[in-house]
Amino acid sequence: MKERYFEDVKAGDRFKSATYEVSEEEIVSFAREFDPQPFHLDRAVAKRTIFGELFASGWHTAAISMRLFVRALNFAEGAIGLGVDEMRWPSAVKPNDVLQVETEILGLRESRSKPSHGIIRIRNVTTNQRGDVVQTMMASALVLRRK
Amino acid sequence: MKERYFEDVKAGDRFKSATYEVSEEEIVSFAREFDPQPFHLDRAVAKRTIFGELFASGWHTAAISMRLFVRALNFAEGAIGLGVDEMRWPSAVKPNDVLQVETEILGLRESRSKPSHGIIRIRNVTTNQRGDVVQTMMASALVLRRK
Repeated sequence: MKERYFEDVKAGDRFKSATYEVSEEEIVSFAREFDPQPFHLDRAVAKRTIFGELFASGWHTAAISMRLFVRALNFAEGAIGLGVDEMRWPSAVKPNDVLQVETEILGLRESRSKPSHGIIRIRNVTTNQRGDVVQTMMASALVLRRK
Repeated sequence: MKERYFEDVKAGDRFKSATYEVSEEEIVSFAREFDPQPFHLDRAVAKRTIFGELFASGWHTAAISMRLFVRALNFAEGAIGLGVDEMRWPSAVKPNDVLQVETEILGLRESRSKPSHGIIRIRNVTTNQRGDVVQTMMASALVLRRK
């Protein structure tokens, strides 16, 4: 897969990631480690919540979205995240959901402090197999310029 | 540990979490699964970056911060995240860093759509053992009211 540089993207470009199926085991194991709340761990408790069944931690959705984004864009030497804004989880991720990320390049600027790099501003939207949006966010990241 | 309800917190309250030491193995294994970029996986590559050594994915920092927050606040039936704003990673998390989260309650309001719940607005600041801030964010979450 070709490596991308700052100069290879422009505002308005859109990229679709591969897909990723999330298992119930992964939902429970991520939650046990990082978000040990009963509705992420126990089907019976989850049944009594507004979601009606076991659902993934939003941080798990965010981590899977990162995996899909990183592989889809494939910046040379990677993209160093500077910050994330307006992250929302409009629908919950449930066992066996198949996730996909669409990235839109919102804008680009050169880095004043690091002339070797540029800063991209992106919007990532993660959807499930039914087209429901499970996460939206904007982010800024430092990526390498061509020498 | 006592369970907390919406009525048990007020604007201005602050809570300090326990601490969590992050190993190099965990940094690499989280990155391999969710943020497979060379500077999170390979010491030699990381050495050439602005950070000078292996560092954790920001999403790993976020996930550990969630774990510390969840256990420190311990809301009855949990806190359902609605969204996160202005997440920043001012310093990188490195192997053997010891993280701690301080939570400030910024505000509270009743939920119009779910009278059984209230919405809390929080600011979480994650620091390392030297007091460097490794993450800041604001978030809103749905928590249970007393019956």
